[in-house]
This record gives sequence, C-alpha cells and structure tokens, in this order.
Amino acid sequence: MSTQTVRMIETIAGGVATPRGFTAAGEYVGIKAPGRGLDLALVVSDRPATAAAVFTTNRAQAAPVVISKEHLAASRGTARAIVVNSGCANACTGVVGMEDAREMARLTARLVQCPEEQVLVASTGVIGVNLKMDKLRDGLPRASAALSSDQGPAAAQAIMTTDPFPKEAAARVTIDGVEITVGGMAKGSGMIEPMMATMLGFVTTDAAIAPSLLSRALREVVDDTFNAITVDGECSTNDCVMILANGASGATVDERSYESFVEALRAVCLPLAIGIVRGGEGATKLVTVNVTGAATTDDARRCAKAIANSPLVKTAIHGGDPNWGRLIAVAGRAGVGFDLDRAAVTIGPVTLFRDGKPFDEAAPEAASYLKHAEIAVGVHLGAGTSSSTVWTCDLSAEYVRINAEYRT
Amino acid sequence: MSTQTVRMIETIAGGVATPRGFTAAGEYVGIKAPGRGLDLALVVSDRPATAAAVFTTNRAQAAPVVISKEHLAASRGTARAIVVNSGCANACTGVVGMEDAREMARLTARLVQCPEEQVLVASTGVIGVNLKMDKLRDGLPRASAALSSDQGPAAAQAIMTTDPFPKEAAARVTIDGVEITVGGMAKGSGMIEPMMATMLGFVTTDAAIAPSLLSRALREVVDDTFNAITVDGECSTNDCVMILANGASGATVDERSYESFVEALRAVCLPLAIGIVRGGEGATKLVTVNVTGAATTDDARRCAKAIANSPLVKTAIHGGDPNWGRLIAVAGRAGVGFDLDRAAVTIGPVTLFRDGKPFDEAAPEAASYLKHAEIAVGVHLGAGTSSSTVWTCDLSAEYVRINAEYRT
Repeated sequence: MSTQTVRMIETIAGGVATPRGFTAAGEYVGIKAPGRGLDLALVVSDRPATAAAVFTTNRAQAAPVVISKEHLAASRGTARAIVVNSGCANACTGVVGMEDAREMARLTARLVQCPEEQVLVASTGVIGVNLKMDKLRDGLPRASAALSSDQGPAAAQAIMTTDPFPKEAAARVTIDGVEITVGGMAKGSGMIEPMMATMLGFVTTDAAIAPSLLSRALREVVDDTFNAITVDGECSTNDCVMILANGASGATVDERSYESFVEALRAVCLPLAIGIVRGGEGATKLVTVNVTGAATTDDARRCAKAIANSPLVKTAIHGGDPNWGRLIAVAGRAGVGFDLDRAAVTIGPVTLFRDGKPFDEAAPEAASYLKHAEIAVGVHLGAGTSSSTVWTCDLSAEYVRINAEYRT
Repeated sequence: MSTQTVRMIETIAGGVATPRGFTAAGEYVGIKAPGRGLDLALVVSDRPATAAAVFTTNRAQAAPVVISKEHLAASRGTARAIVVNSGCANACTGVVGMEDAREMARLTARLVQCPEEQVLVASTGVIGVNLKMDKLRDGLPRASAALSSDQGPAAAQAIMTTDPFPKEAAARVTIDGVEITVGGMAKGSGMIEPMMATMLGFVTTDAAIAPSLLSRALREVVDDTFNAITVDGECSTNDCVMILANGASGATVDERSYESFVEALRAVCLPLAIGIVRGGEGATKLVTVNVTGAATTDDARRCAKAIANSPLVKTAIHGGDPNWGRLIAVAGRAGVGFDLDRAAVTIGPVTLFRDGKPFDEAAPEAASYLKHAEIAVGVHLGAGTSSSTVWTCDLSAEYVRINAEYRT
C-alpha cells in the first residue's frame, strides 16, 4: 500500500452490551446446581444485526451448533439475539436435544419479538445430558426482563463453567469520522461437572457491515486469536464465536475501513483469547510460543501448536525447568521442515541451542527467567522465513485434579 | 491359505541373552549420578548376526541414531554387538556428540573383536549434554568382562532411566523341527534428570534369517506393538528398536516359516510394549483403546491414538469418571470418518452411547468398572469396518510432578 494509515484503536472497559443498541442479561435459572453461579445469558440487538459465526470443526457437533448454523443460513446472516446456557452442553443428546435447542431459540424469539431464525443458540457444560427445559421456560422471561446495557458483566458471568474469572473486552475506533465500538465476552476451559473445555466467544459492534465482509473479518481475526490458543489440545463439540453488527453507530464498514474494523475486532478478541489461556484449568503461567524460520506459515503454526500442546514442555514450564531439549524434540516430531544444524531455541532472552550446538551452561539463567508468570519460548526451525505465535498455559497437577474428579 | 498351521508359541522367562549364542552385561560406569542404578549395557552375539532396526521419525535425531543407521548400511545388515548407555541421550550435542557415538562403537568393536560398523549404539537420558567419555572408556572393558548368558537382567536394568521396573520377555517356537528362541528387553518413559520419554527395544534370536525378511518381520511386529502404545504422545530423538538374529539354533526362517517367526517376535514385543505403558510416568492404570467401525485402518489407528493421547480422556480414567462424552468428542475431532448417528461408546462392558442416543443412566455401572487397574474403552465410528487397538496409561498428578521437577 502506498499510504500509511494511522489507526487509533482505543481499548476500553466494557463487553457485549457496550456498543450502541445492545443489551445483555445473565440469570440463574437452575440448569447448574445451586451456588455454582449464573447459567443463562442473553445478548440482544434493538434492531436486526448482521451476523457471522465460526463453529467447531468437531464432527460430533452439539445440537445448538447445528441449529445456529441452520438459523444463520435461513436468515441470510441476520440476527437479533443470542441465547446461551452453561451447565449443560446439549451435545450427543439425539433428537430430543435438537428439539430443545430449537425451543430455546423459539422462546427467545417470542420474548424479543423476532423470527425464530434470528436467534442464535449456544450451550456449554456436560455432554450427553438433556437440558432441563422446564427451568429454561421459567427462567427465560426473567432474563429477558433483566436485559439492559449495563448487564454485560452478568452475561459474561452466566456463560462461565469453571472459568476462574469472567472475560470481557471492548475497543473503539473511528471510521469516517464516526466512533464505532466493538465489545465481546468469552468463556474457556471449565466445567461445573467435569466436562469439555468448551470455548465460546460472543462479539457485538454498532458498526454496519455487509454479511460477507463481517464473516471475512471474523475468520481473519479468529485465526490469529481464538484459533491461536490452546489449553490442552481438545476441540469441543460446542465451540463457537459469534458476532452481531447492528449499525447503531451510524458508521458503515466497507473495504476502505475494513482494516480499521479488523484491528478493533482483534483488540477485543485477543485479550479474550488470552484470558481463556490465563484461566485455563490449573494454569499458573501464560506461555507465548513463537516459532520462526519455518518453511511456511502452516508449518510455523503446526509446530507452535505441537509445542503448546506437548505435555513434556508444559510440565517443564510448570516446574520452571529450562528443559530446552524438549522444545527441539517437539519441533523434530511436528512433521514440519526442520534443520537441526540451523535451528535455535530460546527461553525468554536466553539462547540455549543454536546452529547445532547446545549452550546448556545458560540453563540456570533460563531457570531464573521461568519463575515469571508470563513467559515466552522460541524455536527457530532453520527451514525458511515464516513464523507463528500461539498462546498456552502450563500443565499442573491441578489440571489433573480438576479433570479427574468424578462428575456425580 | 489352504492349510491351517498350528503354531505353538511358548512364552518363557528370559531376555536378550536367552537365545543361543548371545551374552549380555549391565554395569555402572558413572554416567548417571551414583545410586541411580546401572548405566551401561552390552548385548553381544558370538558370531556375526543379521541385524535390522527401526528408528525414531523425529527430525532431531540423536547422534547414536545417526551412527547406528550408518553402521547398518555399511555392514549390509550385520552386527555383532549393541552398546547402550542410560543417563545421557547424546542428542543435540553437535559434532562432539557424533564423535562420541562413533567412539562408543569403536571401543566396543575392539573389545568384542569385530569391525566398527558391526556395533550398533543407543543412548537415553538428558538431551543437550555431552557423554562423559572418560567414564565410558574406563567402564566398557568391565562391561565386556562381565558378558554372560545369565546377565540379561543386568542389561535390562542398565538401560532404565526412571522406569519403575525392568522389562524383559522371551518366547520359543519350533521351525522345521528345531526350537528357536526370541528374547528382548525394553525401556520406556523415564529420566534420571527429567528428560525425554525415550523408548528403546532390543531383541535377539538364534534363528537365521535374511536381512530383508528380518527387517520386514520387525517392521510388521513393531507396527502393532511398540508403535501401538503411547504414554504422552511424545516421540523422542533417540527411539529405536533393534534386532539381531545369529542363527545359533541351526534353524533358518524363510517365507514358509515367516509367520511362526513373526508370532514369536510378537509374543516378545507385545509384553515389552505393554510393560512400557504399565511403567509410564505416573501411570496407575493400563488402558486398552479399541476403535472399530472405521472407514480405514489408518483412520482407526489415528482415532485410537487421539483418544489415547487426550488429556481429558486420560484424566477422566485416572479419576474413575465414566465421562464418555470426552471419547465422542475426541473421535469427532480426530479428522477421521465419523457418523454421530451410527457411533457407539463403551467403557468395559457398558454401552453409554449408541445410534445417536445417550445411555447416561449406565454411568454408575461404568464408574464401578473403572476402578479396575486394567480397563478397556471402545469407540465405534459408524463409518466402516476397520479397527485398531492402542495401549496407553492414565494421566496422573504424579506425571506432572515427575516432569515438572527441575533437572539440576
């Protein structure tokens, strides 16, 4: 490009109800056991919004995933509301589960007075157990009555399972002289009764944008944010990220302002994604994995994911062990271009291996660095010039404890 | 085939020095810290033996792997001896490491009076640290002097790192009226100073067999034994399985007797492989993963491996949680043909999901079953008729503790 654009992205406190024309609510309706927190969230736009979503690639797709896809197709990318429950994934629940997801949408549509296909549905929690529909039927009107532009935090609470903290983010950018706002919330790995590490993300914006452009922006940003994190390498039956753009700001995103919008979207999605890692089950450290010198971007990403999912790497980092040989070993087995004689390994600022030679004497310095709560490790593959960054957390005995508990 | 062959495979107590014409030794030479057990093993044939090996697919290959491949090529599949040290992997050690591996072979060749290329070398232990060659030079003659047909158990001890127990196996079968013996030893995941979960296997036989047939038999058996186990999904820089066939029994394996030989080889390799899983770091349960109804054998194996490496599945099994939804979820994300409406999940004898419907009410029965130390889980993919079995262990807090300890 011949012109340099200065984009001022301002990150602000806020969430899904921060952009104009959006309200949210979080209620306890009784899907979770009492005392385990809110379990029903609503996000509503005061006018039909352009909608886009990315869904899990898992072939065992939960009923709400199937129904939300159907609704997006039927509405041609338009939605008024998102309804989310925690405490039950409504996955592997057969025909009954599909009917339940449909009814969740239908009940919500009645309350916000829109066509059924303008409601998107998401669920997170135990797999293979049916939704308590009586609780939902009772509770949805209460949630609807609580809808407000200051209830974003309650919605962020209501989508949590065992997330240790809610995750919200918001950002502003000016497009054609008009300020637009992007807001979002997410939940990560967790369980009420130990279950899937479902990842859910919900984003709103008061910009107007065509469905195809919104979908392109969402995919582009998700690839470097929600898809660049891993807690334990598990992809759930319910994962999804949904975005609603209602145009209430009066500004329209087009090809010219696309990059500004994407940056604002990234400014919301990245902290949400990193928040999921920080709140990973049993996590005590945030780990940034940088892979450089890869033959292709795909190679770089694949290697970074392999390192981020390696139990030997994650336990070494947990223990503060600068065990750089494990990083080399994962790079070697990742199925990517790799040249041992040109490879390098760094832990923070410390180089432990380069050009085929170990610098194990630097291990104590690396061990000191590993005492930090946020650490970075780097592997240079010596095979090209592509790179990728992935975020993960360490693997602790607490992860095992959380996931080994019998759920009854 | 038109004829039914009855093959009597007799499993016996024994190891690498049980077949005729083989001796072994295990010594402490000072590569490990004192008190951490033996650290040098020798396996010697009294005559040149046909040799074959399979090596790690890791692109960061350790020096002994590179040298052993060179020697197998130079000797056209002939070897007299295998020399193995524990306590140091001699991996990522640059030019010095290559020289050290060569010298290990040269010193051994001098002691057993054979060409250098008839010695195979293996190492296991810390990556990125050079071998203490002075200790090896001092200790190798002592190991050589101790060579005996009753020292197989000492050799099996000397290749251990933190394996909780040595792994030996032996079997006999009759070929053309002559009894042949196959013996072996293996080491699995472990460390003296926390490091790679190197898998080493060494097999001997007093059958005579052509190099190409021996290589074919080894590959065929390794695929269903050593390659069908996983502790943590990590493939090391040093993994190898080596076999020597010296013909001392007087019997020759040919195409006619190939299947009998393969079965005897399998009878040795399978218990060794399962022994590695039983002795996996922090393991408390042996888990057999059966995947059926797959479109292809590759799909079945890939899905079985994905289940066996899933931290959510492994922690659930550790905790005795019949969390069958995790099995479905892994099958769905494994990248294999999968039809949720025709899929099934079993935990031991208990069916928890079939034809798209959950039977969660059977969970308590499955929970009782999971209290056993040896358990089986099954997933039917509903996509075909192929199947695969993989063995793994559970994931415990002890695994994290072992691998998180700082190695200095």
